[in-house]
Amino acid sequence: MTTPAEFYETHRELLDKAIEAAGARDHWSAYPESPSKSVYGEDAAGAGEQAFQALLGKDFPIEVPGATTSVATERSPYGIDLGIRYPKGEPGDLIAAARAALPGWRAVGPQGRAGVAAEILKRINARIFEMAHAVQHTSGQAFVMAFQAGGAHAQDRGLEAVAVALAESTRIPATATWTKPQRGDALRLEKTSTVVGRGVALVIGCNTFPTWNGYPGLFASLVTGNPVIVKPHPGAVLPLAITVQIAREVLAEAGLDPNVVTLAVEEPGDGIAATLATHPDVRIVDFTGSSEFGNWLEVNARQAVVYTEKAGLNTVIVDSTDDYQGMLRNLAFSLSLYSGQMCTTPQNLLVPAGGIETDTGHRSPDEFAADLGAALDKLLGDPKRAAGTLGAIVNDGVLARLTEAGSLPSVVHGSTEVADEQFPGATIRTPVIARLDAADEKAYTREWFGPISFVITTESTEHSLRLFTETVSHHGALTASVYSTSDEVLAAAREAALDAGVHLSQNLTGGVFVNQTAAFSDLHGTPANPAATAALSDAAFVTGRFFTLQSRRHVSEESNA
Amino acid sequence: MTTPAEFYETHRELLDKAIEAAGARDHWSAYPESPSKSVYGEDAAGAGEQAFQALLGKDFPIEVPGATTSVATERSPYGIDLGIRYPKGEPGDLIAAARAALPGWRAVGPQGRAGVAAEILKRINARIFEMAHAVQHTSGQAFVMAFQAGGAHAQDRGLEAVAVALAESTRIPATATWTKPQRGDALRLEKTSTVVGRGVALVIGCNTFPTWNGYPGLFASLVTGNPVIVKPHPGAVLPLAITVQIAREVLAEAGLDPNVVTLAVEEPGDGIAATLATHPDVRIVDFTGSSEFGNWLEVNARQAVVYTEKAGLNTVIVDSTDDYQGMLRNLAFSLSLYSGQMCTTPQNLLVPAGGIETDTGHRSPDEFAADLGAALDKLLGDPKRAAGTLGAIVNDGVLARLTEAGSLPSVVHGSTEVADEQFPGATIRTPVIARLDAADEKAYTREWFGPISFVITTESTEHSLRLFTETVSHHGALTASVYSTSDEVLAAAREAALDAGVHLSQNLTGGVFVNQTAAFSDLHGTPANPAATAALSDAAFVTGRFFTLQSRRHVSEESNA
Repeated sequence: MTTPAEFYETHRELLDKAIEAAGARDHWSAYPESPSKSVYGEDAAGAGEQAFQALLGKDFPIEVPGATTSVATERSPYGIDLGIRYPKGEPGDLIAAARAALPGWRAVGPQGRAGVAAEILKRINARIFEMAHAVQHTSGQAFVMAFQAGGAHAQDRGLEAVAVALAESTRIPATATWTKPQRGDALRLEKTSTVVGRGVALVIGCNTFPTWNGYPGLFASLVTGNPVIVKPHPGAVLPLAITVQIAREVLAEAGLDPNVVTLAVEEPGDGIAATLATHPDVRIVDFTGSSEFGNWLEVNARQAVVYTEKAGLNTVIVDSTDDYQGMLRNLAFSLSLYSGQMCTTPQNLLVPAGGIETDTGHRSPDEFAADLGAALDKLLGDPKRAAGTLGAIVNDGVLARLTEAGSLPSVVHGSTEVADEQFPGATIRTPVIARLDAADEKAYTREWFGPISFVITTESTEHSLRLFTETVSHHGALTASVYSTSDEVLAAAREAALDAGVHLSQNLTGGVFVNQTAAFSDLHGTPANPAATAALSDAAFVTGRFFTLQSRRHVSEESNA
Repeated sequence: MTTPAEFYETHRELLDKAIEAAGARDHWSAYPESPSKSVYGEDAAGAGEQAFQALLGKDFPIEVPGATTSVATERSPYGIDLGIRYPKGEPGDLIAAARAALPGWRAVGPQGRAGVAAEILKRINARIFEMAHAVQHTSGQAFVMAFQAGGAHAQDRGLEAVAVALAESTRIPATATWTKPQRGDALRLEKTSTVVGRGVALVIGCNTFPTWNGYPGLFASLVTGNPVIVKPHPGAVLPLAITVQIAREVLAEAGLDPNVVTLAVEEPGDGIAATLATHPDVRIVDFTGSSEFGNWLEVNARQAVVYTEKAGLNTVIVDSTDDYQGMLRNLAFSLSLYSGQMCTTPQNLLVPAGGIETDTGHRSPDEFAADLGAALDKLLGDPKRAAGTLGAIVNDGVLARLTEAGSLPSVVHGSTEVADEQFPGATIRTPVIARLDAADEKAYTREWFGPISFVITTESTEHSLRLFTETVSHHGALTASVYSTSDEVLAAAREAALDAGVHLSQNLTGGVFVNQTAAFSDLHGTPANPAATAALSDAAFVTGRFFTLQSRRHVSEESNA
């Protein structure tokens, strides 16, 4: 057995560094993103793949309170059968188990909980290759992306939440002496402050980024003293099942009730997420997914604090550039990465009717759209490289939207199929680009999740900025970016982004992309617009998850000597 | 003109100290609580009273956007006429003015806003005698209490909110450079983080502590970038009108739009608080007052974050004591101070049927109740001293409850009238104590705001603790306290307080009282039970009031050299 305090001592240096990094916002990462042998060892890749293969078609080894049946709901976008069966617990049993685990978890205190969390992350990282396969075959992310975004970067986002939660929940010291001078003896009190979690927490995972989007809520709730029920998307259970399995293993080893973290699986259509989220004992809900269900949760899960990350109209304002090829390459990659199935992928590209000035001359909106299509073709010309960038289409919903977009009257870059050598059954498609006018708001104010983007003609850059502020204020956005050589336009775009309430990237032409954010430096999402009610991971993301309760008593001079 | 940055430099040392104090939780205060000449100067008291007198029966000098009429709604609980008329603006005009002031206030940044806030507090402190009279003659607090609770301590709570808001809104640095090593040149980005307020804020003041309860929300919203509409209770307008007047004066002097802070007065029955609180543009609501309206706001002001402090069942668990006289003195003062018109005054005193052990022998519940009544009589025996402790009854609602409680079958200490030399028209009453049994839950699970308390017989201390946890979990409480000589009982009481979700005082027998909390050390209230959705002032009280929006762009090595 290793006590939570011992886990804290083991990981104390890492946690201190993580807290410091979250305050500095420079590049910092705890988990290497390179799947190379020099980092993770000669055998890690092979062993990880074997571990993944060994899970297929079997009962997943995990205990779930009260489970009597099991369900298998996953199918790889790469065309292979998973057939993994997970035990299914009833909401009442899961909540009762979480409630029973609560007092013991509260008694551990913030540092011990952070120590346990850091140990969980360490063991998740040790299984990073297995996790990468699990993420690949549930989300459809290509392997290297699954390794990075679903592995190392997700773990970084998890550690970031641990760090912010530990820092915020320990700002008020656990004990303090209060001495107030007065005539005669000073008044002296000893004051104790205890962190108390809000109650049972629920994490509702998504299909595309089960770990990256699931870890912040999971670890923020845990460290602030809340037991967590993890409800994965039925299409992406495995990455979170492995996570819960590891968490329970560490909890048990620490002498704690493993039901501090439990797995809740869904039989499609059983509505277990809604049932859990509106249960009177569930006091925290983290959700990533559709605006429809996210908005429903915000309205209906009134007994809980609800942190959502939904969808919106990610917008690019194109005004001018001194690196046209760099801009096109950057945009083409942003539209292609994981087939645009990121909540951060640009959808609406606003271009003034008069065209844009570039280092290679003037371009009309039509020329820009054609050039962007050519940049896509260049990026995705080699099928192998294309498959590595695009990944696979995660589900039929995306495929249906792709078909719908392909039939728009103004398509300038159609979607084509891409074959994958290793997985002949994989569903891989290149992006669609269609041309629209500012007047076509019915089309572009809808979110087209997937590899679908619009080049939209506006009257002027000023009009673009106005349209940007209006559409994002009303419909939300996770990202925004601007290309301009004019300091005035850039300043106006920054002001417009503040008005719209969205983070902004300016003139990205190199190896940083608008759809990627880095833990410990970039916030992801913001409650400043309708696309989310949380930012990963600022103080507001954690401070609603706990209360500080105080106790005070007189002490004499001597008893403190 | 003094710029916000200059105000920040002026008050920087104070702000740094305040942030440090909020982290240390030892005794610390910025504004002297003693109304003595040695502190505030020879002429301060007289000048302050004169300034107050000069306001009576006149139009209060303040600009209110769009105001065409004025209202006078205040009457002193000390029996003198105030007759002060305040200009009345329409909700639409007030909100439009606040919205117009928003961009300029956002541009000031956290430090500048904290500087402006500290200057406002400095000038409020300079008018502390005038304010004390204003608080006395609206709330009914006796003068010295009005000076302390309505003056110095309120200013401390205001500064505490400024400190916590400044600290939390600057955790992410305004600019940072992100350098990620890679093959070839490192990736380098410059990242800017801007604090953006949630939107227009509303502070709804209460009748009893207009400043003490109003300042935390006012200053927390201001420093985090939100314009604030201050809507005082119609019975206690003047203290907040003076506050808003000073705030506008400082804002104008800083070259800012004074409509960053405006005054909204009510004509009784016009429902302006509800109209403002549910307006789509109002995004933050702070409220102190009845559970009824507080709960209504939580349900109906859905477009806003709502911070409420309502009412509950403040409970004392009496088990045993080694200082019986100290306990009785302490309790008698807590019940008498400001006629129990504090949201923190104990109401339910739980005593085991078998009685309690004390240093002066065993006492049955009836004996304890009689002794407590005698302690009240001793404390309040001298009318002059009694008036100074009790203050005056704030309004007819309290008086009506006092009459109702007096007719209970089991009154062991009846309420009597107390005359005040200086103010013959003052309404002053001593507290009622009634005996109840644990079975009389219909009576004691209702909140009897005012000088009304119950000595309730339970089966045992264990039963008292169970009753405490159940009633507070369901009905809420602002305070709880326990008296015991047993370490086991104290530990069980601390655990019960964590389960109930309430702050706890243990064995207070000296000069600290359960109904008083000290800024920078004691949290006041907690969202852990139904009596409040806020704690004054922890990080959660401020982090929901702002968003941090980021902007990033490539930088070359040179541009940062």
